[in-house]
Amino acid sequence: MINPNTSRAMTGKIGRTAREVAGPGVEIEATCPAPGDGPAAVESHTDEAWAALAVARQVAASRADGFVLACFGDPGLDAARELTPAPVVGIAEAAMHVATLSGRTFAVVTTLSRTLGRAHDLVRRYGFDDACVAAYAADVPVLALEDAGSDAHEAIAVLCERAVRDDGADTVVLGCAGMTDLCADLTKRAGVPVIDGVAAAVGLVSGMVRMGVGTSKRDEYARPPRLPPGVPGT
Amino acid sequence: MINPNTSRAMTGKIGRTAREVAGPGVEIEATCPAPGDGPAAVESHTDEAWAALAVARQVAASRADGFVLACFGDPGLDAARELTPAPVVGIAEAAMHVATLSGRTFAVVTTLSRTLGRAHDLVRRYGFDDACVAAYAADVPVLALEDAGSDAHEAIAVLCERAVRDDGADTVVLGCAGMTDLCADLTKRAGVPVIDGVAAAVGLVSGMVRMGVGTSKRDEYARPPRLPPGVPGT
Amino acid sequence: MINPNTSRAMTGKIGRTAREVAGPGVEIEATCPAPGDGPAAVESHTDEAWAALAVARQVAASRADGFVLACFGDPGLDAARELTPAPVVGIAEAAMHVATLSGRTFAVVTTLSRTLGRAHDLVRRYGFDDACVAAYAADVPVLALEDAGSDAHEAIAVLCERAVRDDGADTVVLGCAGMTDLCADLTKRAGVPVIDGVAAAVGLVSGMVRMGVGTSKRDEYARPPRLPPGVPGT
Amino acid sequence: MINPNTSRAMTGKIGRTAREVAGPGVEIEATCPAPGDGPAAVESHTDEAWAALAVARQVAASRADGFVLACFGDPGLDAARELTPAPVVGIAEAAMHVATLSGRTFAVVTTLSRTLGRAHDLVRRYGFDDACVAAYAADVPVLALEDAGSDAHEAIAVLCERAVRDDGADTVVLGCAGMTDLCADLTKRAGVPVIDGVAAAVGLVSGMVRMGVGTSKRDEYARPPRLPPGVPGT
Amino acid sequence: MINPNTSRAMTGKIGRTAREVAGPGVEIEATCPAPGDGPAAVESHTDEAWAALAVARQVAASRADGFVLACFGDPGLDAARELTPAPVVGIAEAAMHVATLSGRTFAVVTTLSRTLGRAHDLVRRYGFDDACVAAYAADVPVLALEDAGSDAHEAIAVLCERAVRDDGADTVVLGCAGMTDLCADLTKRAGVPVIDGVAAAVGLVSGMVRMGVGTSKRDEYARPPRLPPGVPGT
Amino acid sequence: MINPNTSRAMTGKIGRTAREVAGPGVEIEATCPAPGDGPAAVESHTDEAWAALAVARQVAASRADGFVLACFGDPGLDAARELTPAPVVGIAEAAMHVATLSGRTFAVVTTLSRTLGRAHDLVRRYGFDDACVAAYAADVPVLALEDAGSDAHEAIAVLCERAVRDDGADTVVLGCAGMTDLCADLTKRAGVPVIDGVAAAVGLVSGMVRMGVGTSKRDEYARPPRLPPGVPGT
Repeated sequence: MINPNTSRAMTGKIGRTAREVAGPGVEIEATCPAPGDGPAAVESHTDEAWAALAVARQVAASRADGFVLACFGDPGLDAARELTPAPVVGIAEAAMHVATLSGRTFAVVTTLSRTLGRAHDLVRRYGFDDACVAAYAADVPVLALEDAGSDAHEAIAVLCERAVRDDGADTVVLGCAGMTDLCADLTKRAGVPVIDGVAAAVGLVSGMVRMGVGTSKRDEYARPPRLPPGVPGT
Repeated sequence: MINPNTSRAMTGKIGRTAREVAGPGVEIEATCPAPGDGPAAVESHTDEAWAALAVARQVAASRADGFVLACFGDPGLDAARELTPAPVVGIAEAAMHVATLSGRTFAVVTTLSRTLGRAHDLVRRYGFDDACVAAYAADVPVLALEDAGSDAHEAIAVLCERAVRDDGADTVVLGCAGMTDLCADLTKRAGVPVIDGVAAAVGLVSGMVRMGVGTSKRDEYARPPRLPPGVPGT
Repeated sequence: MINPNTSRAMTGKIGRTAREVAGPGVEIEATCPAPGDGPAAVESHTDEAWAALAVARQVAASRADGFVLACFGDPGLDAARELTPAPVVGIAEAAMHVATLSGRTFAVVTTLSRTLGRAHDLVRRYGFDDACVAAYAADVPVLALEDAGSDAHEAIAVLCERAVRDDGADTVVLGCAGMTDLCADLTKRAGVPVIDGVAAAVGLVSGMVRMGVGTSKRDEYARPPRLPPGVPGT
Repeated sequence: MINPNTSRAMTGKIGRTAREVAGPGVEIEATCPAPGDGPAAVESHTDEAWAALAVARQVAASRADGFVLACFGDPGLDAARELTPAPVVGIAEAAMHVATLSGRTFAVVTTLSRTLGRAHDLVRRYGFDDACVAAYAADVPVLALEDAGSDAHEAIAVLCERAVRDDGADTVVLGCAGMTDLCADLTKRAGVPVIDGVAAAVGLVSGMVRMGVGTSKRDEYARPPRLPPGVPGT
Repeated sequence: MINPNTSRAMTGKIGRTAREVAGPGVEIEATCPAPGDGPAAVESHTDEAWAALAVARQVAASRADGFVLACFGDPGLDAARELTPAPVVGIAEAAMHVATLSGRTFAVVTTLSRTLGRAHDLVRRYGFDDACVAAYAADVPVLALEDAGSDAHEAIAVLCERAVRDDGADTVVLGCAGMTDLCADLTKRAGVPVIDGVAAAVGLVSGMVRMGVGTSKRDEYARPPRLPPGVPGT
Repeated sequence: MINPNTSRAMTGKIGRTAREVAGPGVEIEATCPAPGDGPAAVESHTDEAWAALAVARQVAASRADGFVLACFGDPGLDAARELTPAPVVGIAEAAMHVATLSGRTFAVVTTLSRTLGRAHDLVRRYGFDDACVAAYAADVPVLALEDAGSDAHEAIAVLCERAVRDDGADTVVLGCAGMTDLCADLTKRAGVPVIDGVAAAVGLVSGMVRMGVGTSKRDEYARPPRLPPGVPGT
C-alpha cells in the first residue's frame, strides 16, 4: 500500500482497511514518504507532480508482489508500472472498476472541488464516462478526514445521499484514501454500495497475483531508460 | 461458477481453474444446465437468448455468496443481477477489466467470427472501446476446445502472437470459458499476459465478497415483478 | 407484428395502429405468445430474457415478408435477425431513427424507471447518445396502459410536455408499444411530433421490403447452428 | 425528389427509382435547378455551398407532402427543414439509417476521394461512427455515372466487394444519387445488401407522411427570419 | 476579416478589434458583402447557406495572407479552405481552441436559441464536446448588438455569470462576432476569461502565417472543379 | 520556453525557432534545468514525472508573460497552470490545435514507440481522437536528434511520407521539440504542412498575451495550497 502523502495517521488507516479485506495468506505493508519527500496531502496538480515522484521511489524500493497506489488521483501510476513487473492498481481505478460491476452508474464524492478536473480525466482515461453520472466535492481538506472533530463525515454523507436521490447513482465511489474508515457507515446511509478504493484495490491486486497476471512489460511499461534521484534501480 | 452451456467437461474445467486461483477459504461450485435446458454451446445470438434463461435459473436456484457467469458473451448478466443481492460478474467483463489494469491495450481472441459482434457490443458497454485494439476469431467451434485432437490450441496461439506483433496489444483476452486451460501456455508464447476471464472473475467476485459489495439493488436491479417458468423465486 | 408479451388486448391495439399507417397492399398480422409462453409484460431484464425466446419462436414460425418487434426493449432483435432473411425492426430503434429525421433531439418517455437502463443501452447501441436529451419514466406499469381508468395517459402527457419545455426535445419517443393509441393526443399536447415506434417500424419495414433490402445474412446474422426448444427450424 | 445538381439525365433516373419503390398511392415529382442555378455536379465543399441554396429554392417552391434531397452530401438539409413543415430526408442519412437496420456494419462507396471528408462528417452527425467500418472512393467523377462507356460501374463493384471481404461490412451504402441504377447488380456481386439512398429515402419519407410525422418546427427548424434571393416565401 | 453579413457597422467593429490585437506588422482588412449579396444577419441555417456563398466570393476575391471568417457559425469554412492556400480560421473554432488553452471547460453564450444546434455541431466537429459544459442563448437578435439602447449587453452578461456559477465554466466563449466590443467588460463581470473569437482568430491566423503553415491542399481542400457564379477564379 | 530536459543544445535550438517565428516586439527566453534537476531526455513516464517537477520549478521562477512547455508529452502542464496567471501552452497541444486548423486530419511522428501511449492520452484529452489518423515512432532516441551523424532525420522523413500516402494525413505533427529544425525540410518532402509544436506554441501564446487571455484561475488552476521543494512561491 503506497500512500504518496506523508500522513502517518492516514497510512496506518489504509493499512488497517487493507488487512481487514485481504484474504488469508495476504501480507499487507503500508508505506508513506518521509516528511519533505512528498506532499502533506494531494490537493492540486502540483501536489500530484510531487506525489508521482514519491510513488516512484516507494515502488522501486519495495519487493512486494503487488502494489496499491493509495491516493485517489492515482498519481505516478504509469511511472510505477514501468518500475515493476508486479501488478500496480490505483485506488481511483479500482473503485471505478468495482463500481461498474455492482451497478450501472456511479457518482464520485471527493474532498476539494479543485480536484474534480483530475477525477474527470481519470474517469475518461479508464473508460467510465458513460457510467459516471455525477462528481461532487464536499469542500473538506484531505487532512480534515483525520480530525475527529470536523464535520467532514457529515458533509460527505449528505453528498452520497444526494447522488443516489438526484442523480440516480447505483453506487458511490469515495474520492480519497482518507475516507476508507467511513465506508461502512456511508453505505448504510446511502442505501447503495459505497465503494472504498483502498479495499477495492486490495481485492483486484491480490486476485491478479493469484492468477499470475502482472503489468505487461511490452514496450510502454518496460523498464525506463533512466531514473530520477532517489529512485533505487538495478 | 455458472456455465450456461450443457457441456459437463467444460464445466469441470471451469471449476478446476476457479479452485486453482481462489484464495484459501473460498469454496467453488460449478454448475451447468441439464441437457435440453440450455444450448450445447453459445455460438449465436439465438444461443445467447437460450443461455440467458439458463443463467437466470441457475442463479435463482443457488445460495452462493457470489456468482461468475462463465460464458464470454456474458448472457443473462442483467437478469442475474436482478435475481440476487450477491455480486455477479461475467467472464468477458472480468477479463477486460483485468486486462486494462495490466496494460493500456488488449486484443480479444475468440472462437467463431459470428460472435465478434457480441464481443464488440460488450467492449462498448463496459467502456473499453479505446483499450481494445483488435478482436480476432480462430474459427474453431466452442466444443473443439474440448477435443484434444483438434488444432484449436494452435490456431488461438497464432492469433495471440499476431495481436501482440501487429496490433501492439499489451495483453490478450481469451474469448471463451473453454480456453481456460490454455492460458498459461498462451502467455508463454505471446510474451504478454493472456487473461482468462474465468480466473479474472473469481478474483473480482471474491474481492467484492470480502469487501462487502454486492449488486446494487437500487431500481434497475431490484427483484423483478415476475419470473419465467423454471426460475425459482420466493 | 411480434408482441413478445401475452396481452391479447395490447396485441390487438398494435395490429390496429399498424393497419392504419400501412400503405395500400400491405397485409398486417399481429401475434403474441400463448399465456405462459412469454411474460405478461416486459418490465425487467428477466422479462426481456423470457421475451427474447418468445420473439425467436414467433419469428421462426412465420413466413412474413418483414417483422416488427413490438416491445420497446427490442428483446431478441439479434436472435430474430439470425432466424429470417426478411427485415426485422424493433420499435425502439424505429422510433429513434424516425425521431432523428424529424428534429435534432428527442426524449424518451417510458413506463417504469427500472427499464431506463435498457433504454439507455439501446440509445447507445443505435448511435443516438448525442440526439437523446432526456429519458423519463412515468412510473406506470405496462398493463395500466390497457386500463381506461388509470391516470397513465395523464402522467405520460405531463412528461412529454416537460421534455419539450425543460430539455428542449424536438420530438418525443414513446417507450412502450402499449402507448400507440395515445400518440395523436400527445402530439397535440406536446406541440412537437410524438413518435410511436409501432407506426415508425411499420413504415421502415415496408419501405425495406419494397426496396428489396432484408437482413444481411453475412456471418453474424447467418442461420444459427442450433435452435432452442419450441423454435421451429428447417 | 430534389436533385441539387443540374443534370436532367440524373434527375430522370432518380425519379424512375423513386417511382419503382414507392408504394401505391405515392406520387413522385423529381426536380433539378436550371443550368446556372446550381452546380453541374456536387464534388466539393464549394459545390455543396452552391447546392444548398439550390435545394432551399426548390423546397420552398414546392407543395409536396415530403422531400428527398437526392445528393449524398445532404447539402442544405438543415435549411430545407426550416422551409417546410413536411418531412425532409437526405439520401446519405436515409441510406445509413436503413443500412443499420439491415446489419451491424456498413461501408460507404462514393465517387471522388475529396468528398470522403464530408461523408465522414455526416456519419458522425447521424451517429453512425461505430457502424461505418470503411469509406472508399472509386475516383470516378459524378457525371461519369451517366456515361455508359465509362468503367465507373466496374470500379464501384470492386470496392463493394473489397468492403465486404476486407472490412467485414454487412452492407454497402452507395455514396451518390447517380449510382441508383447500379444497386441491383452491385447487390448480386457483393453478396450483401447494397443500399441506394434514393430508394431508402423514398421509404422513410413516405412512412413519415403516412404516420403524420413531419419536421419538428420547435425553435431550430422554425421558419427563418429572412430568405435569400430566389427562395419563394410567404 | 470576412464578415458574411451585410452590416457595415459590425464589419467596422470587427476590423477595430482585429487591429487592436494584431501584432506590429500585421495589416488588417475587413470586408462584407454588398446589400443583397449576403444576409443582413446570420440567424438560421438558411442564412448560413446564403452566407457560405458570400464567404466563398470574398475569400476568392482577396489576396490576403490569411483569412478570418467573422461569423460564429463558421459558414463556408470548408469551401473557403478549397479556395485559397492561405490559412482560414472561423471565429467559432478560434474561440473554442483558445478557451481550451485557458481552462478545462468553457460555455458558449450566443444570440438566438435557434442557432444553438449549429453551435452544438461545431463543438462536436472541432472535438470539444468534453470541454463545452453549457451553451446559452440570450434571445437577442444579432443586430440588437449594434443598437446601443438594447439590453443585449446586460442579457449576455447575466448568462456569462450564470455559466461560471452554475456550470463551473472556466471560460466563456462569445457566440457572435457582434459581441467583440463587450469582451473586456464581460471578462470583468464574469471573473474568468471571456473569449472573443474575432481576437482569437487574429492571433491564430497571424501565428500560422508567421510559421508558414497554410491550408493543407491535399485532396479535400484542393482547388474545386468548378465555381459558383460570382466567385472569381483562375 | 521551458525545456524540461537538461540538454543545452536542444534548449538553444528551441530558442532559435521561437525567435524566428515570434512577431516583432516579442522577447524569447529559453531555459532548462541544471544537470540532475531534470531528465536528460523525456522518454518514459518516469522521465515525465521528473520533468513535471522541473517544469513547475522553472515556471514558478519566471516572470514571463506567457509560457511554452517545450516537450511533446506536455509534462507538468496542469501544475504549471496552477503556478501562474499567464497563459501556458504545451507543444503537443499547440501542434495538434494548429494541425486541425490546417486540415481535417493529422498524424503524429515521434521518437520512441514507448511514448506513443502518452501521445494517445494527449490526443484524447485535447479532443482530437477523430482528427488523429495515425501515430508513428521512428525508434530514434531523443538525443539522436542532436547528433548530426545519426539517421534520425531520414527515419522521420520516411514516416511523414508514409502518413500522407497510407493514412491520408492532411498534416503531420512532429512529436518532439528536438525536431524543430527539421520542419521546413520535412514539409517539402511530405508535400503537406508539417507542424512543429515549438513554433505553433509561440504563435498561440503570443496571440493569447495580445488579446489579454491567460490561464483561468477559477478553482482548478488557482494557486495550489503547498509547493514542492525547489518551487519558488510567494
